[in-house]
Order: sequence, then C-alpha cells, then structure tokens
Amino acid sequence: MTFTVEIKVMPHKELLDPQGKAVIGGLHSLGLNGIEDVRIGKSITLQVNAATADQARELAEEASKKLLSNPVMEYFEIHVN
Amino acid sequence: MTFTVEIKVMPHKELLDPQGKAVIGGLHSLGLNGIEDVRIGKSITLQVNAATADQARELAEEASKKLLSNPVMEYFEIHVN
Repeated sequence: MTFTVEIKVMPHKELLDPQGKAVIGGLHSLGLNGIEDVRIGKSITLQVNAATADQARELAEEASKKLLSNPVMEYFEIHVN
Repeated sequence: MTFTVEIKVMPHKELLDPQGKAVIGGLHSLGLNGIEDVRIGKSITLQVNAATADQARELAEEASKKLLSNPVMEYFEIHVN
C-alpha cells in the first residue's frame, strides 16, 4: 500500500534563521508590516510503499534522520496521510 | 492579536522536481527502497499581527503571492492556527 507522508523540517527555535530575516525585510518593504516573524524550512512529501501506516512512518523517520534533516540545525515533524 | 500561519509552497504536480529526484537517489543508496517518490518544497511559518484569523490569512496570502511563491513553478497552501 502507498502512503503519502509529509515531513516538515524547520530550523531549531533557538537558532537565528537568516533566510527568514531576509524575507521579513522584503515583506516590510512591500508594506506587509503585520507580519512580525518568518521562519523558513523545508516541506517534503514522500510516497511510501509499506504494509501499515506505522511502518510508513518508521521509514520516513529513518529517511529524515539519515538524509532529510540536519539534527544540529533542524528538527522535523512527520505526518502520515 | 498574533496568529501563527503556516504556508506550504510546493512545486506544481505536473512539473519535474529535480531536487526530489536527487533525494530519492540518495534514499535508495541508503537502502530505503520503500520510498517511491519525493517532492521538496518550502515550509514557512509566519507570526502575523492581525485583528482576526481571516485577516491574518489574507495577509499571508498576499505575502505568498507577492514574495513567497513563484506561481509559474509552485502552488501554496495556507493554514492559520
């Protein structure tokens, strides 16, 4: 069975996010002053072939730890559909 | 009031995603053969100061159209918490 798994990889909350800071500058230049903070990470959608949703989640977790995220800088969240 | 708004910006489904194709090659090299497809986009978290959730969503939509996404290549989804 094929499961769609969504992984969100974001910079740790304690770390400065320079890309987000650059974007907030751009948004304020456009007059969008209501936006106070921006953090930018990755959104990854996997199609996983597995017997159960739990197995699909495990595979996605292994992929996230081994390749998709850098644990020094980032954390990840997994959502299986 | 401050709302947390999450924006997911993904490559259009009809388009090839070269970054995703590279990642799937890496995952298969690691032995994670159950993963059949990978698409990679951006996950953006905004802190928006607005009177209502609807207003926060409008601001996020404007930001997405004007700066955060490239409509030729990408579509976006907005979720207000």
